[in-house]
Amino acid sequence: MSYVAAIDVGGTTMKGGFVTRDGTIHAFERRPTPRADGPSAVVAAVSAFVADLARPRDGVRPLAVGLAVPGLVTPTHAVFSAAFGWRDVPASAFAADVPVPVALGHDVRSAGEAELAYGGDVRSAGDAGLAYGGDVRSAGDAALAYGDGRRDVLYLPIGTGIAGAVVLSGALYGGAGGWAGQIGHIPVRPGGVACGCGQRGCLAAYASGGALAARCGVDGAEEVLRRFLDGDARAAEVWGEAVEALALALTTYTLLLDPAAVVIGGGVSQAGEALLAPLRAALTGRLAFRRAPEVRASSLGALAGLMGAGLLGWRAVPGASGRS
Amino acid sequence: MSYVAAIDVGGTTMKGGFVTRDGTIHAFERRPTPRADGPSAVVAAVSAFVADLARPRDGVRPLAVGLAVPGLVTPTHAVFSAAFGWRDVPASAFAADVPVPVALGHDVRSAGEAELAYGGDVRSAGDAGLAYGGDVRSAGDAALAYGDGRRDVLYLPIGTGIAGAVVLSGALYGGAGGWAGQIGHIPVRPGGVACGCGQRGCLAAYASGGALAARCGVDGAEEVLRRFLDGDARAAEVWGEAVEALALALTTYTLLLDPAAVVIGGGVSQAGEALLAPLRAALTGRLAFRRAPEVRASSLGALAGLMGAGLLGWRAVPGASGRS
Repeated sequence: MSYVAAIDVGGTTMKGGFVTRDGTIHAFERRPTPRADGPSAVVAAVSAFVADLARPRDGVRPLAVGLAVPGLVTPTHAVFSAAFGWRDVPASAFAADVPVPVALGHDVRSAGEAELAYGGDVRSAGDAGLAYGGDVRSAGDAALAYGDGRRDVLYLPIGTGIAGAVVLSGALYGGAGGWAGQIGHIPVRPGGVACGCGQRGCLAAYASGGALAARCGVDGAEEVLRRFLDGDARAAEVWGEAVEALALALTTYTLLLDPAAVVIGGGVSQAGEALLAPLRAALTGRLAFRRAPEVRASSLGALAGLMGAGLLGWRAVPGASGRS
Repeated sequence: MSYVAAIDVGGTTMKGGFVTRDGTIHAFERRPTPRADGPSAVVAAVSAFVADLARPRDGVRPLAVGLAVPGLVTPTHAVFSAAFGWRDVPASAFAADVPVPVALGHDVRSAGEAELAYGGDVRSAGDAGLAYGGDVRSAGDAALAYGDGRRDVLYLPIGTGIAGAVVLSGALYGGAGGWAGQIGHIPVRPGGVACGCGQRGCLAAYASGGALAARCGVDGAEEVLRRFLDGDARAAEVWGEAVEALALALTTYTLLLDPAAVVIGGGVSQAGEALLAPLRAALTGRLAFRRAPEVRASSLGALAGLMGAGLLGWRAVPGASGRS
């Protein structure tokens, strides 16, 4: 069996493993991300993880390594990461003495690619058109005129932070300079809560896992959810404000880009219907003259980033296209 | 000289004329849009305008008619228009007894096409990348990696209402069902001013020409501008809130889609630097970790819609591609 090694570097945890062409993960392993120890410590920890996974096992070496990191990323550099304090870290810093190709990519965009490749039933644009109802009787026509064969999806992993993979007409969209998808920092509450990015009222300041935990004074978003389900008043308030902030962001995204679906991933999406049911209701309530897109949890869950790192690795294998 | 006829149906005025392949407008004419007289009256007025322009002059008939209307539009139907109360008006209703092809299209999207075809210097994505500065030293690399040869622009005509033409990678983007670009109704002020669309806090409820006039209790946006420049306190307040609402919308658009430029058109854009200078400052102030895109006025001004209608017409001429 041939495989690549893959690592998804998150704000709290690094996930690693071997990924086959069909997206199956073997030898899954988690390591803590030593974020508190500074920029170089995180680079060193990633580099050590890469070196360990690139080593031969039973005489077989992975064909390549795919490495997904947050921030602004090019194939040659981790240009900028607020989470880790990175500035212009060259890809080679993560790949000392590794004799196979190491491919660097953006965590959320890679996860979006995995969602496209492995995530299953993204509904067709024709379905989306038919789903518009009410008094717009020919919206099916509109879908036939504009939407045939396209796939227009926002993939929104909610982890320690929030970014989005903007999938338009079946492909990831990067924008003029590669900065598209910063939905975590759109001002959903002008003048609202201060965000670590330097702005106020950002989506991430209400709805990221980091914000949920900090606003409740607990260690993680799971604990906020547990307290909310147990009836804790502060947790209910924080959870409700997160849902409203997400609904505002998705209202804006829907009106601007008319997606067929929004796919929520990342650790916070594991709350399931405790998140999705009130979010769907709030989004529908805010849209007065059009239907809401489908809002669902990622079928890949928190492993989408690792599977996306695998796709990065497969694309770096000489002669391989990266998709099975 | 061969030409097509073109009509741009606005909320207040219909503009019509003949358009040559290079976008030159001849025999320009304005007629009032009889919006207050109901849906059928507007259809009848448009139909009469089409018939008049399609008539031969000096023995020469236009090769086709391009007709740009607001709302949700397919090539066969004006599916929905809140402004006119239209539901499923077939294109044929506008083209009774006209012996040349009549092409129906969306006003803002057509204006965006005209901006792309005739609007001149949309900056290259490479320029945009180099314009990112500060501590992100390799952002030029990012532009080279992601942005080469693309044109990523928001074209934002501000007239009686507000919609946007979302230009991504050099092409207009319609979304899954043809509803993309509804930037006029994104919730920039959650819970804010009631909008005619049924939502609250929409961009258009603060910054459209209609809202500017209504909030000042005057007849038109020009009068609001005049009073603002004359030092009227209420006009200054309304103008300032419009600028802030636009800055919020453009902050969100920039973070989501990373455009190289935002091109403001429509009647309100004729305010020039009285609008653009404070808008640029407010947008820059709201973006903490990235530069703002270029914000400029459309070089086509309020004629972009008519030139776009001309492109619709040229595309309907048998054997023509629609661009010179």
